[in-house]
Amino acid sequence: MKLIRYGAPEAEKPGVQLPDGRRIDVSAFTNDFDERFFASGKIKDLADWVATNAANCPVIADSERLGPSVARPSKIICIGLNYAKHAAESGMAVPAEPVVFFKATSAICGPYDNLIIPKNSQKTDWEVELAVVIGKKASYVEEADAMDHVAGYLLHNDYSEREFQLERSGQWVKGKSADTFAPLGPYLATPDELGDPHNLRLWLSVNGEMLQDSNTDDLVFKIPHLIHYLSQFMTLLPGDVISTGTPFGVGLGFNPPRYLKPGDVVELGIDGLGTQKQVAQAWG
Amino acid sequence: MKLIRYGAPEAEKPGVQLPDGRRIDVSAFTNDFDERFFASGKIKDLADWVATNAANCPVIADSERLGPSVARPSKIICIGLNYAKHAAESGMAVPAEPVVFFKATSAICGPYDNLIIPKNSQKTDWEVELAVVIGKKASYVEEADAMDHVAGYLLHNDYSEREFQLERSGQWVKGKSADTFAPLGPYLATPDELGDPHNLRLWLSVNGEMLQDSNTDDLVFKIPHLIHYLSQFMTLLPGDVISTGTPFGVGLGFNPPRYLKPGDVVELGIDGLGTQKQVAQAWG
Repeated sequence: MKLIRYGAPEAEKPGVQLPDGRRIDVSAFTNDFDERFFASGKIKDLADWVATNAANCPVIADSERLGPSVARPSKIICIGLNYAKHAAESGMAVPAEPVVFFKATSAICGPYDNLIIPKNSQKTDWEVELAVVIGKKASYVEEADAMDHVAGYLLHNDYSEREFQLERSGQWVKGKSADTFAPLGPYLATPDELGDPHNLRLWLSVNGEMLQDSNTDDLVFKIPHLIHYLSQFMTLLPGDVISTGTPFGVGLGFNPPRYLKPGDVVELGIDGLGTQKQVAQAWG
Repeated sequence: MKLIRYGAPEAEKPGVQLPDGRRIDVSAFTNDFDERFFASGKIKDLADWVATNAANCPVIADSERLGPSVARPSKIICIGLNYAKHAAESGMAVPAEPVVFFKATSAICGPYDNLIIPKNSQKTDWEVELAVVIGKKASYVEEADAMDHVAGYLLHNDYSEREFQLERSGQWVKGKSADTFAPLGPYLATPDELGDPHNLRLWLSVNGEMLQDSNTDDLVFKIPHLIHYLSQFMTLLPGDVISTGTPFGVGLGFNPPRYLKPGDVVELGIDGLGTQKQVAQAWG
């Protein structure tokens, strides 16, 4: 099943994208795809409900804006340096354990919203990533049980301002948290819909030039380990987003580095999780 | 005015602590002290409402648990190395600009809840801090306007697991985010209630031994600058918590370092913001 959210920013309504591509509003089933929804376990009943009630649900016009596919979660947790070839080609050692950082949830936006280059930014960069949405509270979870805590998967562009991240004292969060730096969607795919998350092509192009093109089979730390690992340090709540890291081909890795400027068109996709497109615009 | 929240964890109700020390339930005025409440600006009307309606509000029994004084915000942003004497005595340079990190909001708890020492933790440490609660959305705010975005102030113990923070690859968030690592309260004091936030004694003791004892007049980066600065990198939302850093006297700074063990009693306070007390307990 594919869950979507549509409508004006911060007023999105829940929907489902049917196998034939039609999108229907499911507000009659739930207010939103938020922490409460995932915690309730109702996602398991949604497919049956749709099978019975689809004909009575309003059809969503193709012209409607798609919002982020999940409501603002309690946290977005990101993993750094998690693709083996990316690390090797960058001349960096694969870390002994996952590198973890946070991104402000106020950065979340829809998959086709414009990217706003922050004021005073010279080094806005892209990162295509596979993101996991937590379906059930997770604290000290064994690796063998970890996948029971997954509600689904999402495409995420982990936009990063490299000067803010790396040259402004301290921690990475400064360069990860600007508004529009976390497009999520176009839809959440449930585990049964997606199949094996560890064998998916993921790619990103800028102005039509392919710059990232890899496969999640190259992930150093796989999803069950990430959930187990993170749950040793914090409680993962229903709806929380874990972004699993980006492969080779970010702007910082070029010599000289390449960064986004107003008008640039960023497109990205992951097998089974659809595609995104953002046009970069100047702040203000 | 002093805002409190009371009742069972995750089911707290809003209240006000009156000048005579009595606590009254204000559920008739608002559901909670959450993002929506702060965004509405209704906090400005609450004092008048209480003046008129206090006699009709249920009195909260002293036996009721106090919860965190604000509902779970979109983010807790913490500032590192922000006391000049702390930096000097630690032999560290004062950073050129604020060091910023995040703490998982799932770490928030009440001011008298037990501290749970995480599983496998050997280095759980304390940090008394003055925290600021945002009252109005802030993006690219000028320093001169920054204080208009403050709803109030809170006492915060920024518990930190030093091995998780500093010895486990990468970013600090791993050591800052365990459940019960962010006691907030006992109350939020509004700016008119607190007065000058830059001249407050703050202190922390362990088993009655005073280990931190300083004053917010030693803050390197003051509150208006912090709000201005952070708002260049992310949008601050109503209800968000900014914790301004800790002074000299954390366990990591002793030679040899001193860390918490089950049964230890941590007490802390800030002038005008009340006191907290946590008893450390082992996980499980």
